[in-house]
Amino acid sequence: MYRKARIKEENTYCDRTPALLIDVDKMEANIRHMAMIADRHHKKLRPHAKTHKMPAVARKQLQAGAAGITVAKVSEAEVMAANGIDDIFIAYPIVTASKIERVLALAGKVNRLIVGIDSLEGAMQLSQTATKANAVIEVRLEIDTGMRRTGVLYEDSLHLASRIHALDHLNLSGIFTFRGAFMNGAPTLDLRSAGIEEGNLMAELAEKMKAQGIPISDVSVGSTPTAEYAAEVNGVTEIRPGTYVFQDQMQARLGVCTLDQCAGTVLATVVSRPSPNYAVIDGGSKTFATDVQPNTEPLQLRGFGHILGAPDAVLERLSEEHGVIRLNGNQPWKIGEQIQIVPNHICSTVNLHNNVYWVDGERIEKVKVLGRGMLE
Amino acid sequence: MYRKARIKEENTYCDRTPALLIDVDKMEANIRHMAMIADRHHKKLRPHAKTHKMPAVARKQLQAGAAGITVAKVSEAEVMAANGIDDIFIAYPIVTASKIERVLALAGKVNRLIVGIDSLEGAMQLSQTATKANAVIEVRLEIDTGMRRTGVLYEDSLHLASRIHALDHLNLSGIFTFRGAFMNGAPTLDLRSAGIEEGNLMAELAEKMKAQGIPISDVSVGSTPTAEYAAEVNGVTEIRPGTYVFQDQMQARLGVCTLDQCAGTVLATVVSRPSPNYAVIDGGSKTFATDVQPNTEPLQLRGFGHILGAPDAVLERLSEEHGVIRLNGNQPWKIGEQIQIVPNHICSTVNLHNNVYWVDGERIEKVKVLGRGMLE
Repeated sequence: MYRKARIKEENTYCDRTPALLIDVDKMEANIRHMAMIADRHHKKLRPHAKTHKMPAVARKQLQAGAAGITVAKVSEAEVMAANGIDDIFIAYPIVTASKIERVLALAGKVNRLIVGIDSLEGAMQLSQTATKANAVIEVRLEIDTGMRRTGVLYEDSLHLASRIHALDHLNLSGIFTFRGAFMNGAPTLDLRSAGIEEGNLMAELAEKMKAQGIPISDVSVGSTPTAEYAAEVNGVTEIRPGTYVFQDQMQARLGVCTLDQCAGTVLATVVSRPSPNYAVIDGGSKTFATDVQPNTEPLQLRGFGHILGAPDAVLERLSEEHGVIRLNGNQPWKIGEQIQIVPNHICSTVNLHNNVYWVDGERIEKVKVLGRGMLE
Repeated sequence: MYRKARIKEENTYCDRTPALLIDVDKMEANIRHMAMIADRHHKKLRPHAKTHKMPAVARKQLQAGAAGITVAKVSEAEVMAANGIDDIFIAYPIVTASKIERVLALAGKVNRLIVGIDSLEGAMQLSQTATKANAVIEVRLEIDTGMRRTGVLYEDSLHLASRIHALDHLNLSGIFTFRGAFMNGAPTLDLRSAGIEEGNLMAELAEKMKAQGIPISDVSVGSTPTAEYAAEVNGVTEIRPGTYVFQDQMQARLGVCTLDQCAGTVLATVVSRPSPNYAVIDGGSKTFATDVQPNTEPLQLRGFGHILGAPDAVLERLSEEHGVIRLNGNQPWKIGEQIQIVPNHICSTVNLHNNVYWVDGERIEKVKVLGRGMLE
């Protein structure tokens, strides 16, 4: 188990469980690894900061070679910009007046700000506000490559791109998609095929747009599971993985990383042992995200996280502040003992925590998750 | 839909969706209703503040007749005490040194502080620390009435109570349990039977303890679904519901309230309409809690929340910042339109938000969720 004794003895923060620990060595190795993948294929890397929401992590990603960062919200962009990040892509349709005004204000403060768009209505809102302000907003059109979420349907995208290209005060410079480990309308474990298909769909579409005179220069694709494969595709220019910075049990089960490469773990304390069959820890659904559920296809994750050093123990049930671990009778855990758990989904787990604890050799630093909780 | 136009036009906060709105009239009606139930049965009401985490709400509950409040964490107790709440029960086993020291410090600042306990090991830790500080800690023993979470097993509880009663510097004044809508090892919809059984189990146990000379004066039971029925039982002295203050889709489906009585709703904006079959809103799993999943027994909730004014629309899929609503083609929602959704589980949903918006007649107030995110 991870340097447990030392953390317990030397740092009072981590006696205050539950606490989310970030292993700095592992985080930095993950950052370097993805930068290397992008570099090998001569692609830009624009990590999605929704995973960490910490400007200090974004700076490490940029120092390792990232061209800029991706965020999901105007508020996240504002936090990043206020902390020195100056190339930001808000990969989300920004369609309401107050947010567009904030985008314009922010664009004046950073080197490059790009905004997602997936509809003519949204594009017209952006165009009108930009025109009034006598500014130009750089936009990328989101393409649905099969996830049925945001993104214009693939078959409608060429037509929409032409319409957007014709609007005043918008600079349509790229297209982007998100699909993750998903293909043919369902989750897949064939990440290579999924990533290559995703890249091909987007590269072909960009060619068609360019043939119509729309100067698409950025073709942005990829997620943590598919980035490595999508990056191989000619015509793709950028990958946008997020989770890779910390990794998690879901990615380990997908085969993207090992459990040992997961940089984020929840430190929890055993608070109750009423029976040899189970133990209760001081972390529940307000500590571990529940958006990636156990026992669902295709991953069949065991429990709400992987318990380090206890392969037979399963974090089986969560209520808000209780985690119930099913035991096979072999765990000698006593009340007060600390255990460490790799969560199923680190992005939504980080989002539950005001602060995380960076563990760097002998040093433990409490770091505020500056971008969390500002929903808009 | 809930005063939508007015909120949109008059308040810029609520143009910054997603936002969690609290209808103050409905909240106050819920508070009065539960106070009336407790009063009718001459039982004390000690609401669980984990639902709202806001001292201002706790004050309303106390003003309506509550005897004190319940919290799940030392940090929540600290926030409540710092904001004038002076009768607090931490219904959770506090077993580690630093937290016990914080409990002792807090006990000196409030009128009454009670701590949960469910093991001899935990009790000895508390006793030793209290003895060193020459203080007395008031404790309640948690009893497992079938949920298999924290709480000493029912059959072991009499023996453990005797041992705890004999420890120095602990004042074992009560017993408590939490079971919710659960009976015979499974979720139940027969709330009356569940509540009465829960009350009877606890009242009988208290009698046995008193017969052994353990002066149990508080017998604390109940949850939002069962409090009304458990309160009927002679020997029960206190109920501890939490969710009732706001209510949610889960409670409505249990029959505890109507959807119209739900005080907490998420205001979200339609950001994308790529197809007549679905719409995408700007709230996902970082806005709506996912601990209460759709389509599971026995509630079979439809989606991740109930969409007001659109009974056929289903909030079917969430990713972190996207909510995908399945439509039957009848919804004319345009991009930029706002909709309101009653979440499945309001407690864990409030926990995702730094601030909520109290809507009181013509007034909208941004209120910080002071107790959230302090996990320890």
